Amino acid sequence: MAQAAIMGFGTVGSGVYEIIRDSDFSGLLGEELKVKYILDIRDFDDEEIKPLLTKDFNDILNDEDIKVACEVMGGLHPAYEFTKQLLEKGVSVVTSNKELVATYGAELLEIAAANNASYMFEASVGGGIPIIRPMTVCTKANTVERIAGILNGTTNYILNEMLERGKSFEEALSDAQAKGYAERNPAADIEGHDACRKLAILSSMAWGKFVDYNEIPTEGIVNISSEDVKYAQKLNSVIKLIGYAELEEDNKIYARVAPMMVSDKIILSSVNGVFNAVMLRGNYLGEAMFYGRGAGKEATASAVVADVLDCARHFDSEKHNIVWDTENDGVMADCGDKVLSFFVRCKDTRENIEKQFDCVSYVDPIEGEIAFTVKNIQQKKLDAGLKELKNVVSCIRLLEE
Amino acid sequence: MAQAAIMGFGTVGSGVYEIIRDSDFSGLLGEELKVKYILDIRDFDDEEIKPLLTKDFNDILNDEDIKVACEVMGGLHPAYEFTKQLLEKGVSVVTSNKELVATYGAELLEIAAANNASYMFEASVGGGIPIIRPMTVCTKANTVERIAGILNGTTNYILNEMLERGKSFEEALSDAQAKGYAERNPAADIEGHDACRKLAILSSMAWGKFVDYNEIPTEGIVNISSEDVKYAQKLNSVIKLIGYAELEEDNKIYARVAPMMVSDKIILSSVNGVFNAVMLRGNYLGEAMFYGRGAGKEATASAVVADVLDCARHFDSEKHNIVWDTENDGVMADCGDKVLSFFVRCKDTRENIEKQFDCVSYVDPIEGEIAFTVKNIQQKKLDAGLKELKNVVSCIRLLEE
Repeated sequence: MAQAAIMGFGTVGSGVYEIIRDSDFSGLLGEELKVKYILDIRDFDDEEIKPLLTKDFNDILNDEDIKVACEVMGGLHPAYEFTKQLLEKGVSVVTSNKELVATYGAELLEIAAANNASYMFEASVGGGIPIIRPMTVCTKANTVERIAGILNGTTNYILNEMLERGKSFEEALSDAQAKGYAERNPAADIEGHDACRKLAILSSMAWGKFVDYNEIPTEGIVNISSEDVKYAQKLNSVIKLIGYAELEEDNKIYARVAPMMVSDKIILSSVNGVFNAVMLRGNYLGEAMFYGRGAGKEATASAVVADVLDCARHFDSEKHNIVWDTENDGVMADCGDKVLSFFVRCKDTRENIEKQFDCVSYVDPIEGEIAFTVKNIQQKKLDAGLKELKNVVSCIRLLEE
Repeated sequence: MAQAAIMGFGTVGSGVYEIIRDSDFSGLLGEELKVKYILDIRDFDDEEIKPLLTKDFNDILNDEDIKVACEVMGGLHPAYEFTKQLLEKGVSVVTSNKELVATYGAELLEIAAANNASYMFEASVGGGIPIIRPMTVCTKANTVERIAGILNGTTNYILNEMLERGKSFEEALSDAQAKGYAERNPAADIEGHDACRKLAILSSMAWGKFVDYNEIPTEGIVNISSEDVKYAQKLNSVIKLIGYAELEEDNKIYARVAPMMVSDKIILSSVNGVFNAVMLRGNYLGEAMFYGRGAGKEATASAVVADVLDCARHFDSEKHNIVWDTENDGVMADCGDKVLSFFVRCKDTRENIEKQFDCVSYVDPIEGEIAFTVKNIQQKKLDAGLKELKNVVSCIRLLEE
């Protein structure tokens, strides 16, 4: 019998417990899989789980029966210390904790590799959608050229409501909170931090170098207005919060989280509601996309369990762990040099606009302002030009094919 | 050094050769990967590959250095015999040959398992899109409830041209042939046989039972007219050739390949051009979709190489092979019992239509005919009703959420 520990009995943890309880994995594993411990500092009255509950992490660490643990507690501490101690002992750890993976992933992967254990985190990006594993496959025979993802369901829901029902940002946010899609303190979602951590993990996976999320410029959707949403429609586009990363010619990584106008020629523009999607461009593969529910108890828990099963199948064999190079000085590209296309709204004259930018293409504006796009301009040239314009209302990147 | 053989030097085979030649996998494998043999009955003048060419399969079979072979020759024979002999010897085989997998997959997987070899076929469905592996992951912790896929790029391109440019089926087919997307003999694509074989493989993967493609009712797109395409638009849908399979409550498998009107609420409706996509519904996961180029030399070859690398990493460890249960008498559901929704065009009276069907919902018709949908009706009741109608022009299934 394979025995597992669950650390953290919140939404995901209880989902993991229920799936393992309700499934028969003996055909797959050649033995049964059981949960031996549930670690949580809280008390639970449920008779069924009472015999499994512990508040002492050492019960798990010192039990030789435990060969895999699910860290689904969230937060950095003590999740980091627990994970580290388990991996050092050769116990595999599976997690849904994107903050921990994005912060200490490189170190934890290295400890895992040194101790023939696995550190797996499929559930940390995209909930239940298989992304990390397909990405591992893609990156074997392909060089990933570009990642563009809708990595946060809350913001995608809000933007979708603004588009479909003409709501303001504030209305759509309240609605998302009422429906339980957004937290009472929604900052991590709407300011882009959640998407940023996921993009950092995906970028690290894609290029084998630890990408520090602190180095990814991140904008949320708090400044997106109903008018911006309508302008996007005029450009046959929709506004999405995009986690974008690209391998530059000099092998530097350009990464950014920002709202972008996504052309309806790109299938990402059809990803609606709370769904998530990750597009990858591989040098041989071309564009591929992975799509599904990016959150939710059962979906996320099923990804954790899939990782547990993978660990359980490979307990006795040598692991082929990934490692992320942490020598990443100068690994990130200078965003100012990046050539992009932009949509701009301002209250100025065409004359002054054309003094600042070449090849301006005007968009039918709302009264009292001018709207235009500029294609293929360096970020720093755009920034310099914008400074010379009066009353810039908004500036949004375009995501094109 | 890991050494591989390529059997068949056509489009995919030469792509595999080029990727292996141009890549450095030593970091991943701990050793170099080289192609030692290229098997083909044809002569090639290329100086570079000449030393690798052989016409004698026994060169490969009897060489102890070869631990993995790529069968990219296509067709059933001698691909089957070669694959079988290699697997029996414990040599892993990787293939893009959907016909072989759909026909002899169950037997070959069993031989592989018995000889601690792997038989891998990621490239057989969806070209380079990782589908088989994510599906393996999904099916570990999920019961797959439903598969709905756009599995053939040629037909998707044709239907897309009919929609976007108002072409007739014949015009769109000629155009696809001119662009090299359709073969001169397009029967396998437009009659649905190619999609059917892929659906059989996906269904076998999803439910662990060998699904014989001969038992999947298959309709192509040859009867789809420009008018049908326009009617679909009126229903906020687009016509796609869908490979559809579902696990029924009695654990039987319902499977069918047919053109369907796909509601624009379903993201499959946004899969355009030559792209392929597979939607899976898992009991915990909910809906997930995998999307990308379903064909093409480089994309397909990169999937073959990814499988080769997976084999090469696991040469010395025990394989955890999948097996498909071949005791499949009565495994397929009776299509007549299936409850579905349909769109119908005919030249008859409303009175007679309403005599045959309940809950008829009419669609604004073109002159001289009546068009309507019927929701949630058993296939056999629909068939019986249609027999009583005069001049049925077309009958197309609806794919709903």
